[in-house]
Amino acid sequence: MTRLFFTLFCCTLLSAQSNTDDKNQIKLFYDLSLLEGHSYEWLDYLSNRIGSRLSGSLGAERAVAWTKSKLDSLGLDRVYLQPVKVPKWVRGPKEFSLIETAPGVTFNVPITALGGSVATPSVGLKAPVVEVQGIEDLYKLGRKNIEGKIVFFNRPMQANLISTFQAYSGCVDQRYDGAREASEFGAVGVIVRSMNLRQDDLPHTGAMSYGEQDVSKRIPAAAISTNAAEKLSYLLKLEPKLKFLFRQQCKIYPDVWSYNVIGEIRGSEFPDEIILVGGHLDSWDLGDGAHDDGAGVVQSMEVLRLFKKAEYRPKRTIRVVLFMNEENGLRGANAYADSALSNREKHIFALESDAGGFTPRGFSFNCSDEEFAQVESWTPLFKPYLIHYFELGGSGADIRPLKNKHNVLAGLRPDSQRYFDHHHSENDTFDAVNKRELELGAAAMTSLIYLYDKYGLVKPLPNTTME
Amino acid sequence: MTRLFFTLFCCTLLSAQSNTDDKNQIKLFYDLSLLEGHSYEWLDYLSNRIGSRLSGSLGAERAVAWTKSKLDSLGLDRVYLQPVKVPKWVRGPKEFSLIETAPGVTFNVPITALGGSVATPSVGLKAPVVEVQGIEDLYKLGRKNIEGKIVFFNRPMQANLISTFQAYSGCVDQRYDGAREASEFGAVGVIVRSMNLRQDDLPHTGAMSYGEQDVSKRIPAAAISTNAAEKLSYLLKLEPKLKFLFRQQCKIYPDVWSYNVIGEIRGSEFPDEIILVGGHLDSWDLGDGAHDDGAGVVQSMEVLRLFKKAEYRPKRTIRVVLFMNEENGLRGANAYADSALSNREKHIFALESDAGGFTPRGFSFNCSDEEFAQVESWTPLFKPYLIHYFELGGSGADIRPLKNKHNVLAGLRPDSQRYFDHHHSENDTFDAVNKRELELGAAAMTSLIYLYDKYGLVKPLPNTTME
Repeated sequence: MTRLFFTLFCCTLLSAQSNTDDKNQIKLFYDLSLLEGHSYEWLDYLSNRIGSRLSGSLGAERAVAWTKSKLDSLGLDRVYLQPVKVPKWVRGPKEFSLIETAPGVTFNVPITALGGSVATPSVGLKAPVVEVQGIEDLYKLGRKNIEGKIVFFNRPMQANLISTFQAYSGCVDQRYDGAREASEFGAVGVIVRSMNLRQDDLPHTGAMSYGEQDVSKRIPAAAISTNAAEKLSYLLKLEPKLKFLFRQQCKIYPDVWSYNVIGEIRGSEFPDEIILVGGHLDSWDLGDGAHDDGAGVVQSMEVLRLFKKAEYRPKRTIRVVLFMNEENGLRGANAYADSALSNREKHIFALESDAGGFTPRGFSFNCSDEEFAQVESWTPLFKPYLIHYFELGGSGADIRPLKNKHNVLAGLRPDSQRYFDHHHSENDTFDAVNKRELELGAAAMTSLIYLYDKYGLVKPLPNTTME
Repeated sequence: MTRLFFTLFCCTLLSAQSNTDDKNQIKLFYDLSLLEGHSYEWLDYLSNRIGSRLSGSLGAERAVAWTKSKLDSLGLDRVYLQPVKVPKWVRGPKEFSLIETAPGVTFNVPITALGGSVATPSVGLKAPVVEVQGIEDLYKLGRKNIEGKIVFFNRPMQANLISTFQAYSGCVDQRYDGAREASEFGAVGVIVRSMNLRQDDLPHTGAMSYGEQDVSKRIPAAAISTNAAEKLSYLLKLEPKLKFLFRQQCKIYPDVWSYNVIGEIRGSEFPDEIILVGGHLDSWDLGDGAHDDGAGVVQSMEVLRLFKKAEYRPKRTIRVVLFMNEENGLRGANAYADSALSNREKHIFALESDAGGFTPRGFSFNCSDEEFAQVESWTPLFKPYLIHYFELGGSGADIRPLKNKHNVLAGLRPDSQRYFDHHHSENDTFDAVNKRELELGAAAMTSLIYLYDKYGLVKPLPNTTME
């Protein structure tokens, strides 16, 4: 009895001590991030000095070189570039478009070519318009109502969903698959309502795909601003025979070489157990990609800087990966996962920040219930920092290929309300990011990485991990 | 046994039904707020058509008339104005200030008079500067180091506090009491670092007080922008004998009449039990007071509109109160509380929104542990709306006088990270408010009011309530 009591007493002491250590360590990370953080000045440089970073662009190459030089300056154990071939799509001159309700009666409207789209004829493409609420409408309308027309996908994001990402998921098929599907019914072009919950005049680009569709069948696709979408829809009711004209000269070039940028602090006890933190270095070519995903890039870099600054030597290897080509290909993510597989690397935990630089609300976890129980036991450590959201769910596009049945993937979940006001548009700029919100995200990420480094997985990984 | 089981079974059924009803009702409020809300267009009018609303100003009077007309249009059971005498302080022409490091070597810096301050001499006030970190430094320095000088209060808000309101509380004594205290040591004027966590060029005003200090001892006080505060501090190190010149022509006029604007839906079962929701109609004269507290005003009005729109007849009386003069006097709050006392009105619950129109994170409650337990039992209803924060704490300045030992007061707690970037400054404008964030706040408030209306207090109020 006495011995059992003593053991329990020791365990309690140890646990209380451990809890205090964790509290203090997390407080230190937050203090360093908020008082002496580098994430915001890094984002300033990435956004304002380098700017947009579409795969294959000069901006992307400058971002590779600059982030590598910054990681080099942090005193990490290893910094390197991982070559990856990426697609090179170029927008060309600014798009032009108008609604013509009668010969000579026109209204200019703002559009932007969707990423991956083909060009229109150089004089532009002019055709009548058929408005639909989604791909299923194409099947209802049939070829007779679509052939020779421009299909106008106008299903708005659902404003009464609390998660704007859920609202985005519910609409983005129009943008991604709309052109390919409409072409099969004889459409000559596609105009898609911007994925934006706000009424404004900014069109939002984003990836579209023709899949394996024959080149001869590929039709041009552009996004139209939400205000202009309302206008077009209204005018169509007044004048169903109106015509839409748009002109875009985008072009796909052969793939070019680029890089994932990688840096790591080698673990002192379990160097073979890798904890990854990352975001994506590429962005769309509108705006400067400050929220998507400049924020995730600088926060991920900051995690390693905070470990160094706090003079905390991790037990496991902490690796930052700045992925190339998330937006239109995921080539960086796939190259990284392939390399991890062939090198038999053990990724026990991976954390992605790719949902904007807004106030962090928590994390979403892709893991077993058993692993999630461990995460939940840590929530009291995060409550003082107003981090409340810990849910099972997705993680992030760049780390998803690393998932196996043992490890844990997670995504930072910032407040999402303003995200799609900026996403993929020309107002995704540095001034839309708040310094404290960005720094709070970096601190939350560092704290979670710290806990995974200290406590590891509940069920340790077997030797082969990619199963 | 069987009977007990049956009773338990019925209770469970009832509780499950009640829970489903609550879920559905709250969903309806959210849908109506996000899909057909009026709060944002109201705020547009209040901010852009009316603008700033300092007590005693034309803007304040227009805001009274306009909000009353809007409440009149909602089909409430009663809308009325409650007269209240308010102070009238007028800034006068734009302030002027400069740092003079040597005769003829000057740097202009942005300042703004603190609300309630006296003017400088009309040619301005020029004096050497003594920098302090707070009021306690005055006592350390003593009269010999302060007499004839301008005291520069430069203690910054603490950036490593997660709640920016806590950081504000830790600094605001410099602004409120600094001039009165410094004058006692012979200071001739006071310059206070703006209550702003960001480095920028905007000075932030706010209330200061001379208390009962003799008029002859009252010295002028102004806020300086955070960037200029850093500059002044830096230049003082280089040239301790530099002089600061500032000129402001603010003036206090005799009190004038104004109004609290009040509307209510009469309760169907317990009309004498009042549930109050409110914000303050006055604002500072810089910017247009969109966050402070236009947001709280339109959200509170929206609560009643959503009840009407949802065709939900409350059991208790739901009353919106738009308080006048929160910023520099609390006269509206005191007049309302005095009236409630003399009319023996029973306020069982009061909710204030006066912390900005940002994403709602939860509520803070001023109540007994027993009442708080009820609140906590409701938290699962709010989780789908990402409302996680329910804590014991303060409520709001305007409702505080209504507290008694039985009732519950609460304050909406929006995300606070950006609030003090705008608070009391010229950038507290409509464009800084996000439509969805504002509407989510209104819906959360409506949901909490709904629950208090339906379930009432755990311990019903005795007949006399102001004890």
